[in-house]
Amino acid sequence: MKKIVLLRHGESAWNRENRFTGWTDVDLTDKGVEEALKAGELLKAEGFRFGKAYTSYLKRAVRTLNCVLDRLDQEWIPVEKNWRLNEKHYGVLQGLNKSETAARFGEEQVHIWRRSYDVAPDPLAEDDPRNPRFDPRYAGIPDEELPRTESLKQTIERALPYWQCVIFPELSVHDEILVVAHGNSLRGIIKHLKGISDAAISELNLPTAVPYVFEFDDKLRLVKDYFLGDPEQIRKLMEAVANQGKK
Amino acid sequence: MKKIVLLRHGESAWNRENRFTGWTDVDLTDKGVEEALKAGELLKAEGFRFGKAYTSYLKRAVRTLNCVLDRLDQEWIPVEKNWRLNEKHYGVLQGLNKSETAARFGEEQVHIWRRSYDVAPDPLAEDDPRNPRFDPRYAGIPDEELPRTESLKQTIERALPYWQCVIFPELSVHDEILVVAHGNSLRGIIKHLKGISDAAISELNLPTAVPYVFEFDDKLRLVKDYFLGDPEQIRKLMEAVANQGKK
Repeated sequence: MKKIVLLRHGESAWNRENRFTGWTDVDLTDKGVEEALKAGELLKAEGFRFGKAYTSYLKRAVRTLNCVLDRLDQEWIPVEKNWRLNEKHYGVLQGLNKSETAARFGEEQVHIWRRSYDVAPDPLAEDDPRNPRFDPRYAGIPDEELPRTESLKQTIERALPYWQCVIFPELSVHDEILVVAHGNSLRGIIKHLKGISDAAISELNLPTAVPYVFEFDDKLRLVKDYFLGDPEQIRKLMEAVANQGKK
Repeated sequence: MKKIVLLRHGESAWNRENRFTGWTDVDLTDKGVEEALKAGELLKAEGFRFGKAYTSYLKRAVRTLNCVLDRLDQEWIPVEKNWRLNEKHYGVLQGLNKSETAARFGEEQVHIWRRSYDVAPDPLAEDDPRNPRFDPRYAGIPDEELPRTESLKQTIERALPYWQCVIFPELSVHDEILVVAHGNSLRGIIKHLKGISDAAISELNLPTAVPYVFEFDDKLRLVKDYFLGDPEQIRKLMEAVANQGKK
């Protein structure tokens, strides 16, 4: 049985402040570090031994991965980072508080920005210092591929090729693979794996730092998927994510 | 000007206990973490922006690198890990206290084991649980390449091809490269770069977590090399390393 574990990063400073983060490179909170270490302990208790790990260019994901590998005593495994696993780019909303934005634009509009499939927030201006073209980490990427904002659809369109061309084929080499990324880039992968509709995928609210296991047979067909941990607690965590956009 | 920075990991638990570590996967102490963070701050203050980083399969090196990247705000850069950057394998001495070993076998013998160029400690028995062939991280490596003990010469012979074939050629792609490794694998690289003799290289005592900068011109010829930090403090740190094998 081959397995891929998807893991959303632990709580970040802006998760806590309830701000739109997107590509802003915000660090984990102490609670986020603890969540990540706990995820590592859970994976260790279940006997996971990863052959390879993938993560985004954002430190909240990289640090979550480092914490997990620490607990697994697997710091030595190869790790590949790619911007295609980054969170959805939230355009001009990046940095704004979600509740304030809701009070200003209405809950409905915020829900559309957060959860509609193909509506993107307004893009960053070309000369906005938050524009990824000014960040050296994205220097090697063709400018037309670098977002100034993204809908969930656009996020999935740039994340999925990396999943299909790079991560998934490694399952023929490694029995267990770990992917630490973000709510929306992971939505893209899960949508693809489970054939979830455009309308339904936005309602999937991944809890932070709860390992989500996908099992594949020897033909690499998906057999089953499940979260690790206490179901009741996971349900509460998912509800909390869903409620972030309320006033 | 192209630059490669060599960095020995921060203090590990067994550095502190003055035990032969070798390939034992011992973690950093709190002091070691602090040293690593300080090295990162020093590199940041000097304006380093690394394009790529290399480290060993051992967590004291990986964690030192993670601390440095944290302080540089460069968690996102590609990191490649390889067993060829591991510390010298100390054979049956691994785990023994250096002073006790000196009291038992004599300072002279310990000095030979630690500092002679081509004398290796006795090898681990094939069925010794410390034999690397039992460690899954080395499963992909041909058994005849996996050491049961190593002289400094043998350490250099397996580290240098990785430097020559993988790390150094990347200098044509990246302006600044970081290598976080161990006293003896780094000795091999420095010996090669500076043309140090077999006899003299053993007397080079690298301090922990002090960045050692090598500058190259556009033909990739070595121009100069220097440590970052306070010269007097570095001298003391080097002396302390040299004195570890005394009773």
